[in-house]
Amino acid sequence: MSKSAWQLLGDYLKDTQLLGSIQNTLYWDQNTSMPISGSAWRGEQLSLLAKQLHERQSCEEFEILIKKAKLELQILKDKNDLEFQLVTDRFKNLKLLEQDFNRQKRIDPKLIVALATAKSEGYMCWQEARKNNDFKSFSPSLKKLIELRKEQSNQLCEERTCWETLAQPFEPNLTINRVEELFKPLKKRLPELIHKAENIINKKSEKWDLAISHQEKLCQILLNDWSRDPSNTAIAKSPHPFSITLGPDDYRITTRIVKGQPLSCLLATAHEWGHSLYEQGLPSESHQWFAWPLGQATSMAVHESQSLFWENRIARSFSFAQSFWHHFENAGAPIHSGNDLWINLNPFTPGLNRVEADELSYGLHIMIRTDLEIDLIEKGLPVEDLPTEWNKRYLNLLGVSPKNDTEGCLQDVHWSEGMFGYFPSYLLGHLISAQLTKTLENDLGKIDNLIESKEISKILGWLRKNVHHYGRSLDSEELVSKVSGASLSPNYFLEYLDNKLEKLSKISD
Amino acid sequence: MSKSAWQLLGDYLKDTQLLGSIQNTLYWDQNTSMPISGSAWRGEQLSLLAKQLHERQSCEEFEILIKKAKLELQILKDKNDLEFQLVTDRFKNLKLLEQDFNRQKRIDPKLIVALATAKSEGYMCWQEARKNNDFKSFSPSLKKLIELRKEQSNQLCEERTCWETLAQPFEPNLTINRVEELFKPLKKRLPELIHKAENIINKKSEKWDLAISHQEKLCQILLNDWSRDPSNTAIAKSPHPFSITLGPDDYRITTRIVKGQPLSCLLATAHEWGHSLYEQGLPSESHQWFAWPLGQATSMAVHESQSLFWENRIARSFSFAQSFWHHFENAGAPIHSGNDLWINLNPFTPGLNRVEADELSYGLHIMIRTDLEIDLIEKGLPVEDLPTEWNKRYLNLLGVSPKNDTEGCLQDVHWSEGMFGYFPSYLLGHLISAQLTKTLENDLGKIDNLIESKEISKILGWLRKNVHHYGRSLDSEELVSKVSGASLSPNYFLEYLDNKLEKLSKISD
Repeated sequence: MSKSAWQLLGDYLKDTQLLGSIQNTLYWDQNTSMPISGSAWRGEQLSLLAKQLHERQSCEEFEILIKKAKLELQILKDKNDLEFQLVTDRFKNLKLLEQDFNRQKRIDPKLIVALATAKSEGYMCWQEARKNNDFKSFSPSLKKLIELRKEQSNQLCEERTCWETLAQPFEPNLTINRVEELFKPLKKRLPELIHKAENIINKKSEKWDLAISHQEKLCQILLNDWSRDPSNTAIAKSPHPFSITLGPDDYRITTRIVKGQPLSCLLATAHEWGHSLYEQGLPSESHQWFAWPLGQATSMAVHESQSLFWENRIARSFSFAQSFWHHFENAGAPIHSGNDLWINLNPFTPGLNRVEADELSYGLHIMIRTDLEIDLIEKGLPVEDLPTEWNKRYLNLLGVSPKNDTEGCLQDVHWSEGMFGYFPSYLLGHLISAQLTKTLENDLGKIDNLIESKEISKILGWLRKNVHHYGRSLDSEELVSKVSGASLSPNYFLEYLDNKLEKLSKISD
Repeated sequence: MSKSAWQLLGDYLKDTQLLGSIQNTLYWDQNTSMPISGSAWRGEQLSLLAKQLHERQSCEEFEILIKKAKLELQILKDKNDLEFQLVTDRFKNLKLLEQDFNRQKRIDPKLIVALATAKSEGYMCWQEARKNNDFKSFSPSLKKLIELRKEQSNQLCEERTCWETLAQPFEPNLTINRVEELFKPLKKRLPELIHKAENIINKKSEKWDLAISHQEKLCQILLNDWSRDPSNTAIAKSPHPFSITLGPDDYRITTRIVKGQPLSCLLATAHEWGHSLYEQGLPSESHQWFAWPLGQATSMAVHESQSLFWENRIARSFSFAQSFWHHFENAGAPIHSGNDLWINLNPFTPGLNRVEADELSYGLHIMIRTDLEIDLIEKGLPVEDLPTEWNKRYLNLLGVSPKNDTEGCLQDVHWSEGMFGYFPSYLLGHLISAQLTKTLENDLGKIDNLIESKEISKILGWLRKNVHHYGRSLDSEELVSKVSGASLSPNYFLEYLDNKLEKLSKISD
C-alpha cells in the first residue's frame, strides 16, 4: 500500500527534525566539550546544516507536501473518516507548518548562511571578550549581528516592528505594547519591594563556599528527588547553563560552578531541569510526533515559566529548605536549619548578575535588557554606547554598578548569538509561573504542603497534564487563560513576592 | 574571476568533509555523553548522514568535478604552469579520489542506510550484552552485520577475497597471504618469549590501585609532557578508549578507568594520544587541505604504529619509568623507584584482555581475532560457535580461558560496528613501530637517552617529518620501505622484545 499524503509529510518532517537535532548535538558539544580552536570548523559545520535546514523548510517540495496533506485531510473530514479531535489537531499542525514555511520562504538562503556564521563567530568572540573584559573586541561582532537581524526582519516583511518580528520565534504574537503593559507595574513595584526587603533581612550568614564535588553531589540528590531517569538524560558543565533536547528520548542539561556562590550550581540545575521536564512532558507518543509542531514547545516564556517554577517555586521555597538543609550540613556547609538554608536561598540583595539574581531583582535585570535591545534594534542606540547605558540603567534601577563589562553587558550569551527578543520571555515566564501556580494550588493545595509530604510527583503530574501536554496547540497567553481562567497579569507574581517577603520578615525577626 | 576546476572540486570536498566530521561529532557524543535511550534516534541521525555522504561520494556531479579537475591539471602540466611537486601531489590526490569514488559508486544506497542502522543497533546491543554477559542477545546483530558486510563486498566486486575487500578501507592493498607471511614467525616466537618471561619476572608487586582523581592527574602530567595543547584537544571518558578528529583544529581522545588496574588509564591515554599526534601531524596547511586525500591518514596500521609507539616505546620504556615513577609515589602508589614502575608497566603475564595486554601477548590476541573473523566471513564459522572457538584458541595460544563472554569474545567494540579487517592493523602497527624506531634511533640515538634528556619534542619532530607528514601519499608498506630502506618484517619487533626481556631479566635478578 502506498503511503498517505500525511505519512509522506511526516517522513519529510522527520528528516528535517533529524537535521535539527544534529544541529543541537553540535551546539551541545560546542558548549560542553569542544576545544576553543575547533570553533572555526564548527561554525562551518553549523552553517552547512543551517543552509540544508533552510532549504528543506522553504522549498517547493515541502510546500507541495503540505498542500497535498491539507487536501487529503479535508477529504477525510468531509467523509467523517477521522475523529474530530484528530482532525482538529491535524489542521492545527498544518496551520503552524504553513506559518513557519511562509516565514522561511521569505528569507534569502545567503542570509541564513551569513547568520549562522556570524552567530558562531559572535559566540566565540564573546567568550574571549568576557574572559578578557574587552567589550571593544566584541562590538564588531555585535554590530554585524544586529545588521543581519535587521535584514532578516526586512525580508520577513511582517506587520510588526523590527524587534517584534525578531521576537516571534521565541514568543509568538508578542508586541512591544503588551510587553510594556505587563512590565510597567513591575518597574514601579519591584524597586519598592527591594527597598522593603532591605529592612527585613539582616540574618545573612558569613560568606561560605562548597567543594565542587559536594555541589555536584547535591545536584545529583536534587535530580534524583525530581524524577531524573539517567537512561534518557545527561548532565554536563558549560560556561552558561542550558537545557537542550537531542532526540525524543535524549534530554540534556548543563550547569556550572561559580566560585564563592555555593547555591548557584544547585539553582541552575533546578532551573535547567525545569526546562527539561517541560520538553520531557511534551506530547511525543512516537518519534514521529516529535517532528510535528504540536509536539514542540509553544514559546520561550512558557519554557521559562517551567524552569522558573522549579527554581523558585520549589527550590527556593520554605519547605524545600526544611527538607533539604541537612544535605548541606552533611556537605560541611554552615547551614544548621531549614531557616538557615531558606534565608541563604533568598538573599534579596540586588546584584549585577541576572542568572544569580533573586526573584525581586530578576525582573529589573530583564527590563534593562529588553529596553536596551529595543533601543539597539529600533532606536539607533550605537553599540559603542552599550556599556555606558547598561551601567547607567543598573545604577538607576538596581542601585548597583558593574566594575567592568564582564560583570556588566558581557555577562549574557544571548546577543552574542544574535538572539534579540528573547529576554522578555524570562520575566513573562515569572508571571506565567505565578499565575499557573495559583491554579495548581487551587487544585492540589499549597505547594509547601506538597513538598513537605514529598509529593513532587503530584506537582509534576499536574504540570504535565495542564501545561506540558499542550505543546504548540495554544500560544502562551491562550495557555494561561485556559488554565487559570484569566488573562495574563503581573498581579499574581507581585502577590507571591509580597507573601514571601512577609514570611521571610517573620523568620528574620 | 570564476573559480578553477580545482577550486570547485575543493569546495565540494570540503562540504563532504564537513558532513563526515559531523558524523564524527555524533560518534564522539554517543560514546562520551549520550544517555542510552538516545541510541535509536542517534542511529537515525547517523543513517541520514551516511546516506547524504554516500550520495555526495558517488554522484555524477562529483564524478564530473574530478574529471574536469584532471583535465585542467593536465593542461597546466603541459604548459609547465605548476611546480613539479604540486602537479605530482595533485595527480596523486585525484587518483585516490577516483579510487574512492569508484568504490562508493558500486554500493547500493539502501545498503549504506542498512549498514549505518545495523552498526548503530549492533553497538548499543553489544554494550548491553557485554554488561549482562549475554552473547546470545548480541548474536543476531552480529549475524546481520556479517551478512550486510558480505553483501557490501559482493557489490564492490574487487579482485580480492571477501575479507580482503572489507579490510581495504583500513589497510589499503592488504592480502591474506601477506598477513600470514608476516604473522607466521610471531605465532611461533611469541609463545616462546612468553615462556621465557615466566622464568625471569618474579618481583611482581602486590595488587594495588589508585583513586580515579589521581589517575586523571597522572594522565594530565603525561599529556603536558607530551606537548598537549588544550586549545585544540579535549579528553573524555568512554567504555572503549578512542581517538577522533572533529575538525582541522579539533582533536579528541578518550580514556577509561579500570578498577584494579592502576596503569590502564595512563597507558590508554598514551596510546590514544599517539593516534592523535599522528592526526595532528598530517599535512594541513589550511582547512582545505584537511578535505583532500593527501591530508588524511594512510592506513590504520600506520595509525596503530603511532599509538603503539607512544604507548610501548615511550610509556613502557625503562627511562620513562625512571623519570615518571615519583608521580606515582606522590599519588600514594606502592612505587618507590623507576625499576618498580618499569616492572609494573611490563608485567608480561598473558591475560584475557587485548587492550590491557603487554607487548608479548598482544600479537596473539590479534592473531586469534584475525583468524576468527576470516573464519566468520570466509569459512562459514557459525556466529553461535564464536564463544567456544574464542575460548579454545585463547587456551591454546595464551594458556588462559575467559570465565565468561564479557571477558572473552564480547570485549572488543569492533565487530559490533561491523568492522571486519581492522584487527591485523594493530599487530602490523607493532611491526611498523619497531621498524621505524630502528631508523629513528639510527638518526637520533637511543630513545632511552632522548627520554632521559627530556627530548620528547625531538622524537615527535622526527615522527612528524618522517611519518605523519606523508598523509596518504604512501601506503603503509611504501612508507616503511621509504623510511627504513627495507620491506616490512617482523624481525625488528622480535629483536626489540628479545632486548627488553634481556634487560628486564637483569633488573629482576
